[in-house]
Amino acid sequence: MFITIEGPEGSGKSTAVNTAVKHLETLGYKIVRTREPGGTPISEKIREVILDKGNTMMDPRTEALLYAASRRQHLVEKVWPALERGEIVVCDRYLDSSLAYQGGARHLGIDEVLNINLFATEHTYPDLTLLFDIEPELGLARIAANSNREVNRLDLEKLEFHKTVRDTFLLLAKRYPERYVIIDASKSVEDVANATIEAILNRLCK
Amino acid sequence: MFITIEGPEGSGKSTAVNTAVKHLETLGYKIVRTREPGGTPISEKIREVILDKGNTMMDPRTEALLYAASRRQHLVEKVWPALERGEIVVCDRYLDSSLAYQGGARHLGIDEVLNINLFATEHTYPDLTLLFDIEPELGLARIAANSNREVNRLDLEKLEFHKTVRDTFLLLAKRYPERYVIIDASKSVEDVANATIEAILNRLCK
Repeated sequence: MFITIEGPEGSGKSTAVNTAVKHLETLGYKIVRTREPGGTPISEKIREVILDKGNTMMDPRTEALLYAASRRQHLVEKVWPALERGEIVVCDRYLDSSLAYQGGARHLGIDEVLNINLFATEHTYPDLTLLFDIEPELGLARIAANSNREVNRLDLEKLEFHKTVRDTFLLLAKRYPERYVIIDASKSVEDVANATIEAILNRLCK
Repeated sequence: MFITIEGPEGSGKSTAVNTAVKHLETLGYKIVRTREPGGTPISEKIREVILDKGNTMMDPRTEALLYAASRRQHLVEKVWPALERGEIVVCDRYLDSSLAYQGGARHLGIDEVLNINLFATEHTYPDLTLLFDIEPELGLARIAANSNREVNRLDLEKLEFHKTVRDTFLLLAKRYPERYVIIDASKSVEDVANATIEAILNRLCK
């Protein structure tokens, strides 16, 4: 069972998934929690190139190809072996993040970015994708509150970008209804955690 | 005018192309000679990841995606700007190397590898591809002669690999007859250089 977690910062997804994973482990499920690049040395090196602040000249397509390369290596070294051992893999961000960020918000096109990711993943789609959905304004306000700082001009400029990311995620949820569950992340921490547990258990018991 | 140079080591392509470029420059043509990663910092960093001897776990698809990423950045920073200035770009190895090595010899499939490279290059095919074609045995013998060493077991094991590379290049030449010119690299250094000059001048005068 391959579960991916999607949604913006400020959606509270990490807290909710931590609670859900602990709960599932007490029920006896064996869970591998991971995120790309996931500690695999090659993926880490690729991520270093992506995140290198000196690389301001990086073209969006170069970036999308590097994310796909890092994803591939993480799948080969970490995700597939765990799935083969019969474990549940819970991965923070995966394919859909590339579709929403590079495909949608950076305007490369969802299907173009999907295409290179199908090469990378050999069509390994998640069994379940939890989308922690929240209005970008609310997510932004939460981040600002947590970091004790005011919302600045740069944040507001980014708002349009994050709105496009959200719209693309909601579009993907319609496109892949068989694997998408939308969690309303505007609710309380407890409600969000409970919805997360419920969504995972529902899928496990199918 | 975008010219790419393909063919194995030991085919004498560097010598022939050097001679041809000098000749064309005396005729007044402005030529940019390059090869991926071509000195662009991001491409160089990507190439470091590919060539890192510690990365023995690297999956062939990861490698193909990294080559495509490096190619993209080299195009954006170096090839396209030169073409826009009206210069002739002569690039050692390009798209077709990925098709022959990763697609053919590493069995990823020509069309699969082409697919991610069309994303990377936005369908930028060369105007002319010079294939320096030589029997792998002969190329191998030349390399051994130049390095003053005997052909060893490892070389022979690689022979099968290089035969598949050659077969794939010849297949590509049939697939893209409008841009491919096959140079018989088994001939003398002078003959090969002359054939190279002729092929380029023919295309320039079209």
